[in-house]
Amino acid sequence: MNRSWPVLTVAGVLVAGLAFHLAAQSSPPPEAPRFTAAGQLQRPANYREWIWLSSGLGMSYNPSARSAGNPSFDNVFVNPAAYRAFLQTGAWPDQTVFVLEVRASESHGSINQQGHYQGARLAMEVEVKDARRFPGKWAFFAFPGANDSAAPIPTTASCYSCHAQNGAVDNTFVQFYPTLLEVARQKGTLRPVPVTPVR
Amino acid sequence: MNRSWPVLTVAGVLVAGLAFHLAAQSSPPPEAPRFTAAGQLQRPANYREWIWLSSGLGMSYNPSARSAGNPSFDNVFVNPAAYRAFLQTGAWPDQTVFVLEVRASESHGSINQQGHYQGARLAMEVEVKDARRFPGKWAFFAFPGANDSAAPIPTTASCYSCHAQNGAVDNTFVQFYPTLLEVARQKGTLRPVPVTPVR
Repeated sequence: MNRSWPVLTVAGVLVAGLAFHLAAQSSPPPEAPRFTAAGQLQRPANYREWIWLSSGLGMSYNPSARSAGNPSFDNVFVNPAAYRAFLQTGAWPDQTVFVLEVRASESHGSINQQGHYQGARLAMEVEVKDARRFPGKWAFFAFPGANDSAAPIPTTASCYSCHAQNGAVDNTFVQFYPTLLEVARQKGTLRPVPVTPVR
Repeated sequence: MNRSWPVLTVAGVLVAGLAFHLAAQSSPPPEAPRFTAAGQLQRPANYREWIWLSSGLGMSYNPSARSAGNPSFDNVFVNPAAYRAFLQTGAWPDQTVFVLEVRASESHGSINQQGHYQGARLAMEVEVKDARRFPGKWAFFAFPGANDSAAPIPTTASCYSCHAQNGAVDNTFVQFYPTLLEVARQKGTLRPVPVTPVR
């Protein structure tokens, strides 16, 4: 009997075990931010299968804005790895990816007669935390159409200053995500945010 | 050399491989419906980490209902295994679990001045498909407080007849879930539903 047989068997079974592990996983979507060689963020795939944080309807920072008849829904998702880290620490790890999906609202369809349900997607924006890549740690990206990748929005845009000044936890609006708001309270990571309107 | 050594090694490595697999899994929450010995549905844990389908605000089937100042949000989640099956087939497999979470809406807080964002949880209801357990395949359950389990709502309740008559796909309101509506259209599993109001 070849003495090396047990060693080969051990290696083979380890490989088989790894293959079993990979096959048995529930096909997690690729969720880490991916960039092109030119530094553009690739469109996050399968974000609808990430962790949903909350949805709002017709939210506006402008007190003089008029509510439209069918205002838009804002749906916010975060990648599962970042979510799990937040549950443990109340803070966002590097490689956190937020997706803001904007959808039309509809009022009359099927049996619905009142209120609003969600319709076509109108916009998609992404916020990424990557301390090595971005001097301010966070960057914003817009995917207005079918573009597969996007360059960072210039840091002079209002999204940067508004998130930095008003986000309850590290550049993010945890004050509007009820389950994470409770986590941040328990972890002591919530910071006071102004209640005065942003003009 | 003991000839049984390689066999023991193979078994040991298989066990190690299985342990590696279990440890390396991303701790998927238990998502299949679980019942007590008395036939009560156990409260689904971690449904906020399931697949979110959509949210509506102040939806009502009653055309004479008045919109309240702060109507409620309806958030709908489904267990990931059922979601993956739906993407493939446009139909719901046995052991599908829907969770409807109702939350208060808030309008003025932090920097928000218009529209509605989500607040405290007001109610939680569950719909389960289990053809062996329920004669009509589907059953509904309410978790009004902190109850850990719930008996099925009696089949005379209006939820049964309304879902059966108006659900666009197999007792569920896929017409209000924009991404699944598209899947059902492509798979040909959408059925015509009445557009007349439910009184």
